[in-house]
Formats: sequence, C-alpha cells, structure tokens
Amino acid sequence: MDLDINTIVTEQAKAAKKASKKLALLSSAEKNKALYAMAHALETKTPIILKANMLDMEDGRQKGLSAAMLDRLLLTTERIAQMADGLRQIASLDDPIGNGIMSHRRPNGLDIRCIRVPLGLIGIIYEARPNVTADAIGLCLKSGNAVILRGGSEAIKSNTILASILAEAAHSAGIPEGAVQFVKITDHSAVDVMMRLNKYIDVIIPRGGAGLIKRVVENSIVPVIETGVGICHIYVDDKANMDMATKIIINAKTTRPAVCNAVETVLIHQGIANEFLPLLCEKLKSYKVEIRGCEKCCQICPDLKLATDEDWATEYGDLILSVKIVTDMDEAIDHINNFGSGHSEAIITDCYTNALKFQKNVDAAAVYVNASTRFTDGNEFGFGAEIGISTQKLHARGPMGLEALTTMKYLIYGEGQVR
Amino acid sequence: MDLDINTIVTEQAKAAKKASKKLALLSSAEKNKALYAMAHALETKTPIILKANMLDMEDGRQKGLSAAMLDRLLLTTERIAQMADGLRQIASLDDPIGNGIMSHRRPNGLDIRCIRVPLGLIGIIYEARPNVTADAIGLCLKSGNAVILRGGSEAIKSNTILASILAEAAHSAGIPEGAVQFVKITDHSAVDVMMRLNKYIDVIIPRGGAGLIKRVVENSIVPVIETGVGICHIYVDDKANMDMATKIIINAKTTRPAVCNAVETVLIHQGIANEFLPLLCEKLKSYKVEIRGCEKCCQICPDLKLATDEDWATEYGDLILSVKIVTDMDEAIDHINNFGSGHSEAIITDCYTNALKFQKNVDAAAVYVNASTRFTDGNEFGFGAEIGISTQKLHARGPMGLEALTTMKYLIYGEGQVR
Repeated sequence: MDLDINTIVTEQAKAAKKASKKLALLSSAEKNKALYAMAHALETKTPIILKANMLDMEDGRQKGLSAAMLDRLLLTTERIAQMADGLRQIASLDDPIGNGIMSHRRPNGLDIRCIRVPLGLIGIIYEARPNVTADAIGLCLKSGNAVILRGGSEAIKSNTILASILAEAAHSAGIPEGAVQFVKITDHSAVDVMMRLNKYIDVIIPRGGAGLIKRVVENSIVPVIETGVGICHIYVDDKANMDMATKIIINAKTTRPAVCNAVETVLIHQGIANEFLPLLCEKLKSYKVEIRGCEKCCQICPDLKLATDEDWATEYGDLILSVKIVTDMDEAIDHINNFGSGHSEAIITDCYTNALKFQKNVDAAAVYVNASTRFTDGNEFGFGAEIGISTQKLHARGPMGLEALTTMKYLIYGEGQVR
Repeated sequence: MDLDINTIVTEQAKAAKKASKKLALLSSAEKNKALYAMAHALETKTPIILKANMLDMEDGRQKGLSAAMLDRLLLTTERIAQMADGLRQIASLDDPIGNGIMSHRRPNGLDIRCIRVPLGLIGIIYEARPNVTADAIGLCLKSGNAVILRGGSEAIKSNTILASILAEAAHSAGIPEGAVQFVKITDHSAVDVMMRLNKYIDVIIPRGGAGLIKRVVENSIVPVIETGVGICHIYVDDKANMDMATKIIINAKTTRPAVCNAVETVLIHQGIANEFLPLLCEKLKSYKVEIRGCEKCCQICPDLKLATDEDWATEYGDLILSVKIVTDMDEAIDHINNFGSGHSEAIITDCYTNALKFQKNVDAAAVYVNASTRFTDGNEFGFGAEIGISTQKLHARGPMGLEALTTMKYLIYGEGQVR
C-alpha cells in the first residue's frame, strides 16, 4: 500500500515537472486564454461541483464538523462564480515572467542580464477550503508553474471534481498535459511522499492551521514557504490619538476575527492607560469582544478576565483580545519581537520619533503607523490575488503575489570570453 | 553530554539572535569601521594564527589527509593578508540595508514602502577551509546579520583562533557583543542542534562537499540555501566557431578544475563531431585532461576511454572531462536538464535562433552563449565577494552577494485608515 502511494504521487510529480518545462515558455496571452477557459468551465459545470460538494457536506455533518468548518467547506452557485471571477482577475494581472531584474556590462565586455523565470513545480498542501483549489491553480499557471495539490479529506470530493474540471479546461486551452495534478489520496502518507520529492517539486506552500504548517516545516526536504500564522499586535503610544486608536483596534479585531491579519493583543502605554483602557473596553464590549487583561489592566477595570502567559502566545481567531499595559515603548517592542509571529504589527502615535523607532525595531513582514493590521493582504497591497502571506524571511515575506512564485536566471551574452 | 552540547549551542544562537537586533540598526559607516578593525587584527595577530594552523596541519598529516586537503587547510602570512584584504573589500561594497524595493500609494491614501533589512542570524556550516571563517563573518556583518559558524574538525584550531580574533576586533569597534559565534564542538551533534534552532537561526548556508550539503538539506528545519555542486556543460552547436569552442572548453576545464563552475561534460552536435572532436581531444591531451567519451566518440577517436552512465552525473573536480555526441540541440538540452545541477551551462554557436532557444530551455542559474562557465562567480558578476553560489531556486539563485543575505520589510504609513 505505502509503495503504491509512493509510486502514484511520484508519478504525478514527475508528469507535472515534465509539463512545467513547456509551460514555462508559454506567452502571457496563451496562459490568459487558459485562465478564461477555466473560469468558463467552472460556471458551466457548477451543477456537478455542487453535487460533489453536497456529499462532502453530508460526510462533514456525520463527522460532526463545527458550523465554522462546514461553512468553509460549503460551495454555492455564488461562491463558484466568485472562484471563476478570481481566475479572470488573475488573468488580468501583469505577468512577471521575463521581466528584467538587472542588466549590466562587465569590463571584459560580457553582458549579464537577470530575468524572472517560473520556479517549476509548486506543491500546495491545504485543508478544507475548496476555493484554494481554483486560486492556487490559477496563480501557479499564470506564473508559468506546474502545480501539485493535496487537499484535506473533508473537501476531497469537491476538490477532486474542481481540480479535474480546471485541469481539463486548461489542457484544452493549450496548457501542457499534466501541468495540474491533484493528489486524491487522503492518507497522510501522501503528504509524506510529497515532502521527500525535492527532485521534482521546487517548493511546498502549506496553507492551513498551525499544526499542518509545523508538520510540513519540520519534515519537508523540499524547500517550504511558511504562511499564515498571525499573532498581530497594536501598540497604543502615550502620544496616540485615542479615537483613532479605538477605531483601528475595533476594525482590526472585529471585521474578520478568523483571519491571520486580525489583531490578537493590544499593548497600551501606561501614561494613557487610566484614560484609554476604560474607553476601549466599553467599545469592545459593544462588539461582544471578550477581553483578557494583564494585572495592571485588571486593576483599572476590575471586571476584566485575567490573562495568563499562554494568552500572549495565542492566535485566537475569534472575538477575544488580550490587553497589556507597558511601561514604555521599549517594553512594547520587546513583547512584540518575543510573542509576534512576524506577520503585521502597528503603532498608533502622533510622535514622529516613536513611529520611526517602532518601524525600525519591530521585526515583522508589515509594520504599520496609524492604520489597521487588516491591510496585510495581496489585494490591499496592490498585488492582486495572493497565494498566501509569508511569515518567514527567506524568498518571500508578507503577501505573496505572482512574483513570489518566480525565481531568476542569469543570461550571459559572450563573444568568446574566457577567464 | 548531548544535553550539554544542546545547551551550549542553543545559548550561543540565543546570544547571537539578541545581538542581531542591535546590529540590524547600525549604519554602514559603523559596520565598515568594524571590518577595517577586523582586517587590522588579522594582520597584527598573524603569528598566533600561524601557530594554531601549524597544529591543525600536524594533526592533518597524522590523520593522513591528502595533499590537496592539506593545501586547503594551510595558512601562510600571505594567505592571512589576503583574508584581511577580503574584509577591506567587503567594507568597500555598497550596503544593501535600507535600500528601497518598491514604494507606492494605494487608493485609500496608505503609503506602502518595502525596504531591505537583514535576515537576522545566519548559520554557516563548512568544512576545512579557514578562509571561509573571515569571508563569512565579514559578509554577514556588512549586511547587518549576526552569524553562528560551525567549521570542520580538521581546521578547528585555526578557525577557533580566527573567529575569536575577529569577534573581539568587531566588538571593540562597536559591533554588539555576541554577534559573532563560533561553535567549537566538533562532534556532529552540534550540527544537529543548529539544524533544529529555527527559533533563533533564520537560514543555514552549508559550504562544502555534496555529502555535507545533502545532510543539511535533508535534516534541517531551519531554511537552507543549497550551494556549490556544479555539474556544468558546454554544448558545441553545429553552427559553432570551433576555435572559440576549443578555447572556451580548455578555459572552463583546466584553469581551476576543482571549483564548481568548471565544466564536467562537453556535448557535441553530430554534424561537426568528425571534424571537431579530434581537434578538441588533441588540445585537451596537451593539458593532460583525461577524456571519457560516449560510444560515438570512441568510434571517431578509438583511443578514448568509454564513459559509463555514472560519468554523466559526476562532478569530477579534476582534469577529467566526459564528452558526448548528440543528434541535435534538443538532445543536448534534455541531457543538461537531466544531469545538470542547475549551476552554469553554455552553448557555443553563431546561430541566433539556437542561442535564444538554448537560453530559454536550459534550467540553470547561469546560461551562457559563447563564454566560459568559469565566470559564474560573485566578483566576475560584479557583486564583489560572495557567500556561495546557490543552485536552488528559492530566495537566491547563482552567485550570492550581500543582497542574498537580506530579506524585506513593508513599512506602511497611515492616517487612521481602516478596512
């Protein structure tokens, strides 16, 4: 059995890698044509996608998945139309392939030029959200990469039909056969096989919960881009505009508490805590946010729940916020660099010096002054769709658009030069 | 014992990570001052370095190291002066830290700016060449990174004294204490500990033979940049200038056969093989190069040794060259993409169409037309010193200068924007 899984997954990766060589040379026009065909196929084949999804939903209910999980799993005609629109949006993005990174002439007359080329074959390991299937395939193809996907067991029927419709439409529109591979094996050993295939797979991007990401980071010999875990902070300086601070905190906590750019901890300078904390708590309560405060917070607002050490290291993904009073900005910076996940951090201040110091000293992908952490997102940053938000430092950091799916190649033009 | 090694290495990494926070904020002038001080320290302390190196050389002779290994290990006054000059050259390079990568204003008025920042803490695992100690420390400090080095047992006494002199000089000149860490434990478990410290170490760069690199790639949960393995090819097209081809092949094979950008296999179009191969073989023999040819080659030049399948996958690192006759360029490209290590590949041709096709279809860091593969090198590419040559696609590809030791950070300037 294990041998079979190994053979099946390896053959899929091999076929995709082979296809990637031709795919890398397609023009933007050819790739865009395929993306439009794929969008169209999703729309015309909506009924059979919905049918497969109903089976997943039924299984999910029997397995006792939570309402939130079931909602993530659910497909509707509207959600499928959104997937199709997403593919068309990807078609409209600038193609980074072939763009120059640098170009210069050396003293010996050699012309050296460096351009963007596709990575080759990208592995995506994800959980129960079927929309990832269309997004990931679209972004990989647009950037000239083949893709091998392995989705979670909860959405296996939906993902299988989606991937098969998309692969077929892509191939019919001129994408090399085999460029889109979906691993149907839900056994975990399929993931183990993928993580060893560094001969064929150039990078693995895990999308999902912290457990999945940790397992891939710790076990993959294929290079990995870590995504998604967000323990984001907002530091309210003693020079802050308190109205602005409240507005930004409410936005960052309540608009979509489940996403990674939502705020989890607010740090308040002690100089304004007596005045600001009660105001903030009142506002948060009207949004039904549970507050867990440090000891000093509980002294000011005795009805708060006391935060434990664990709270500072927790991504709630829910309407819960931890709040801590700090003696100065240095303590806030230390706290953030210690407990943050390197995602998005913000300072609210009217002091130029503090803003500059915060941005220099906080070690994260995105460091904000006077704005909500919720903006860390490919669309909001102006990159169009994103394949994820990198919280590591190598290769890509922050929202990953099409450029993050490329590597580079040096082209050297000689006239017989030797060294 | 294992627990001790774990504690010692972890504490070193922790101290270096702590220092990296301050180091990241130093100006170029401050970092350059330290590099000059380090260069000066190497020169004034040459006698004690030579003394330590003599002990390593003695151990090496007793262990029966090869003459080539002993030569790599050997330090002389002149070689130490070269190390010092290397540090001064690094001081003269442009500092990438703080350089802008992009900057734009979003429709909601948010200004988003992306700049280069240091990676943080870089781990270097290397073998018996003591000059790597000075190079790596210099490049890491110049790019604002702390560094933890672990050298091979053969050079342990030389490397320990070098690292200690450099760390002390750096600290005296204003580099934060702890920024340069040298792991003195030669037991392999010290490497195992480093490879698990992804909480502190941001990237590991292995420098050495294929065995070391494979072990690190397969076992490290810290992200790795693969370097150095070079199975480079030169394809001689039927439209090639044969004199130029000969000159380039001789250069690429014989000037420094042990380095990774030396050529290992020559592919010859069958259309010119009858004429070109005998010419090439004669020339190569005058340089004492052993030739291993495919069957067709042996038919043309019956005194050639027959190549085995293993030859096509071997980095000789020596005056040995494998030669294969191909029926067309497609076969050459397939051979290269199959056996190449993604390092440097060249075509010799006067045909525009073939040059373009070769550069598009060959998947390697550097693809040359009519020039020697020996140019793949940080200095030759105009980047100054290099920390290695990446043969992977993620983060960095080809010669890695200072920019390869940086990551990026988004700075967002708001006026109260919410989403």
